[in-house]
Amino acid sequence: MDFKSLALEYKTPLYIYDFEHIKEQFESVKEAFYARKSLICYAVKANSNLSVLRYLGKLGAGCDCVSVGEIKRALIAGISKYKIIFSGVGKEDSEIAYALRQNILMLNVESEEELKRIETIAQYMKIKARISVRVNPNVDAKTHPHISTGLKKNKFGVDVDTAKRLYIYVKDSEWLEPVGIHCHIGSQILDIEPYKEATKITAELLKSLKALDIDLKFFDVGGGIGIRYKDETPIKLYDFAQAVLANLGECDVTVVCEPGRFLVGNSGYLLTKVLYEKKNGNKRFVVVDAAMNDLIRPGFYNAYHEIEAVDKEGQKVSKADVVGAICESSDFLGKNVLLPKLNHGDLLIVKSVGAYGFSMSSNYNTRPRCAEVAFIGNKYRIIRRRETFEDLIECETECLVRGNV
Amino acid sequence: MDFKSLALEYKTPLYIYDFEHIKEQFESVKEAFYARKSLICYAVKANSNLSVLRYLGKLGAGCDCVSVGEIKRALIAGISKYKIIFSGVGKEDSEIAYALRQNILMLNVESEEELKRIETIAQYMKIKARISVRVNPNVDAKTHPHISTGLKKNKFGVDVDTAKRLYIYVKDSEWLEPVGIHCHIGSQILDIEPYKEATKITAELLKSLKALDIDLKFFDVGGGIGIRYKDETPIKLYDFAQAVLANLGECDVTVVCEPGRFLVGNSGYLLTKVLYEKKNGNKRFVVVDAAMNDLIRPGFYNAYHEIEAVDKEGQKVSKADVVGAICESSDFLGKNVLLPKLNHGDLLIVKSVGAYGFSMSSNYNTRPRCAEVAFIGNKYRIIRRRETFEDLIECETECLVRGNV
Repeated sequence: MDFKSLALEYKTPLYIYDFEHIKEQFESVKEAFYARKSLICYAVKANSNLSVLRYLGKLGAGCDCVSVGEIKRALIAGISKYKIIFSGVGKEDSEIAYALRQNILMLNVESEEELKRIETIAQYMKIKARISVRVNPNVDAKTHPHISTGLKKNKFGVDVDTAKRLYIYVKDSEWLEPVGIHCHIGSQILDIEPYKEATKITAELLKSLKALDIDLKFFDVGGGIGIRYKDETPIKLYDFAQAVLANLGECDVTVVCEPGRFLVGNSGYLLTKVLYEKKNGNKRFVVVDAAMNDLIRPGFYNAYHEIEAVDKEGQKVSKADVVGAICESSDFLGKNVLLPKLNHGDLLIVKSVGAYGFSMSSNYNTRPRCAEVAFIGNKYRIIRRRETFEDLIECETECLVRGNV
Repeated sequence: MDFKSLALEYKTPLYIYDFEHIKEQFESVKEAFYARKSLICYAVKANSNLSVLRYLGKLGAGCDCVSVGEIKRALIAGISKYKIIFSGVGKEDSEIAYALRQNILMLNVESEEELKRIETIAQYMKIKARISVRVNPNVDAKTHPHISTGLKKNKFGVDVDTAKRLYIYVKDSEWLEPVGIHCHIGSQILDIEPYKEATKITAELLKSLKALDIDLKFFDVGGGIGIRYKDETPIKLYDFAQAVLANLGECDVTVVCEPGRFLVGNSGYLLTKVLYEKKNGNKRFVVVDAAMNDLIRPGFYNAYHEIEAVDKEGQKVSKADVVGAICESSDFLGKNVLLPKLNHGDLLIVKSVGAYGFSMSSNYNTRPRCAEVAFIGNKYRIIRRRETFEDLIECETECLVRGNV
C-alpha cells in the first residue's frame, strides 16, 4: 500500500482496510464448510462500517447483530433479512419489536426472562418469533478474560438443562418457533479443543431435542476464531469445520458460523504520523497523532499490534514506546517497539487493527474519530469521512442555547 | 433527584449532573487558595459538555485543555482566552497555530522537540508564544498505573535539568516567552505527600530560575485531587493549598490549579433501566440498558462505582453483577453489588460518574450515546440530546453511495 500518498490525501490518523484480504478470509470459511449447508454471519461489532457490511453481503455473508443499530446497519448495507441474526444478553423491548417486524432469520436468546419478553412482544404484535437458544457450555476458551464468554461465571447464555427446558417451552408456545441452537465461547480463540468440547455438548443437545420432536434447522457454532497478531498459530479452518461436522454426524442442519475478527482483523492498518520523539531518562517515546481514543485495544486488553515505520527499511533500530497525545499512561499503541530514528512527519503503521479498532473508538479528549478507507481493486475509496469538531458538539449546541445554564 | 420522572422524560441510559455540587466543589478549591492570587483551570477532559464548561466559566473557572477541540469547546462556552491553558504531550502543528492565534494564556510544553516546533510556528506566525514547561518530578502518585503521570517511565513532561535548560532557551528566543511552570503527577490522588514532594521540586526550580532572571508568573500545580467513590478519604483542600503555599514561600506567583474529577466526579449519576435478571448457576446477573460503551471505567480501570436501586429501600438484598448488553465479559458496571430483587423496568443509579464517564463513551456495538441532563436550581435541563442511529452512520452513508464498494 502507498501509505505516503494515503497520508497526504486523507490525512492521519487513518484506518485502511484491504478488502481483498477480507474476501480471502471469507472464502476460506465458506470453503471449510463446502460440503455442507452453511451460513456465514459476519459479527458486525468487529467492524460495523456500512461498506464493509455491503462488501461481505455481496460475497454472500449474513450478519450477526447485537443491537438494533447493527440490524439497521445490516439492512442498509443490503444484507438479506433472512441472513440476519440478533444476539446479545440485553435486548430491549423496542429492539425485539424491530427485529420481529423486520422478519429477520432468528433471535439468539440468552435467558429465560428474555424468552418470556420476546413471547409477550410477539403475541402483542401477532408475529411468530423464530428462536435459537444460546447454550453456555461452561467450557474454558483459554482466551483473555475480557472476551471469554462460555463459562458459567460469564453473563452469556443458559446451561444445557435450562436450554432444554426453554426449547420445550418454545415448542409449546403459540408465538415462538424453535429454529436454531447457538453456542459462542469467546473471542480470539487459538485452541481447537474448547470448540470440540462446546460443539459436542451443543450437538448432543440438538439430538436430544430431536428425540423430543423439536427439529432445529440451524446449528450456530458462534465465532471467535483467533488470528495472528504476533506469533500466534491460528486454528486451521478445515480442522475447525471437521470438528463441528463430526459432532453433528447425520443431523440435517445448516451450520451457522459468526466470524468477526477472523474476517476483518488482519485486513486493517492504522496509519499515524510521528509528532515528536522524546526521552525521559533512558526511556524513548515516540509520540504519534493516533491515540487510545482511536485504538483502545493496547490499553484495554494489553493487546499487541505490530508497528512499523514507513519507508525506513534497513535502518538501525532501538526500543521505544509508541504513545498518543492523551493524558493517561494507558494511552499507548505499543511498548518496546523496535523503531528507527524518527522525525516529525514520519509515518508509522499499526497492523491488524481491522477488528475492534474503529468500532471501539471514542471522542475522548474531544478528538474527532478517524476517516476509514477501503483498498479495493487497487484503488482507495473513502468509506467513512473524518469527523469534524462540529460533529462532536452537534448534540450539545442546541441545548446550550436553549438551556441557558 | 426524581429519577423515575427523569427516566420517563429523557429515557435511559441517562447521565445527570448536579450543578450545585459542581459549584460547591469549585468554591471549595477557590476558598483553599483564598489569600493568594489563583486561577482554577478546569480539566476539560473529565467532562467536556459545553454547559458544564459554561457553568464553571461563570463561576470564574478557566480551562485546562489537551486538544484543539477542547480549546474550541472552552471558547464556545465563553471561557476567557486568558484563562485557557493548552497541555498535552502530542500537540499538532495546526493545534499549536490555533492556540497562538487565539492568544490563550499559555502552552504547557512537554518536550524539547515540542518547544522547538512551537518556536518555529510562532516565528512563522509572528506571534510570541507564552510558555510553561511541564516538569516530571519522578514522584510516585500512588494511584492506578493507567493514570499515574509523574514518573520518569511515563511519557509526560521533562526532568528538572532539562526543564532548566529549556527555560534558558525560551528566555533567549525571540518567539518564546517564559510565563509559567507546570507539574502534574497523576489522577485520583489520595495522599498529600506526593504533592508536597512534587511542588517542592517544582518550587525549587522556580526559585533557581528567578536567580537566572527568569521570572515566571504562573505556578501550575496540576490537578489529580482524588474523590470518594467508596470509602476513600480525600485530601483536605486546605492542607493541599498550604503544602503548595509553604513551598512557594515569598514567590509572587499566581497559583494555577487544574482540577477535573474533583469538580465534577461526584456530581454525576448514570440512570439505567433493568432489562433482565438472570442466573448462571449460582451467579446472579442484572442486565441493564447501560453498558461499557456508556461507562468504561469499571472495565478499563476496574473502577468502583456505587450502584443503588431506585425506590427499593429496606428490601432484602443479595449480590449481583450489574452488566450491560455488550458481548464482552468486560462489560460490567459493578460486581457483587448488593441489590434487591429487580424486575424489568426497575431503575438503578450508578454514582459518581461525572468525570471520565460520558467523555470516554463510545458507539461500540452501534449504541447511540446517552443524553446528558443538568440538575440546576431545582430544575432539569437537557444539555446534550441523545444520539440517534442516523447520527452514527452520518459519516458513512455518503461514502457508501459514492464509493459503491
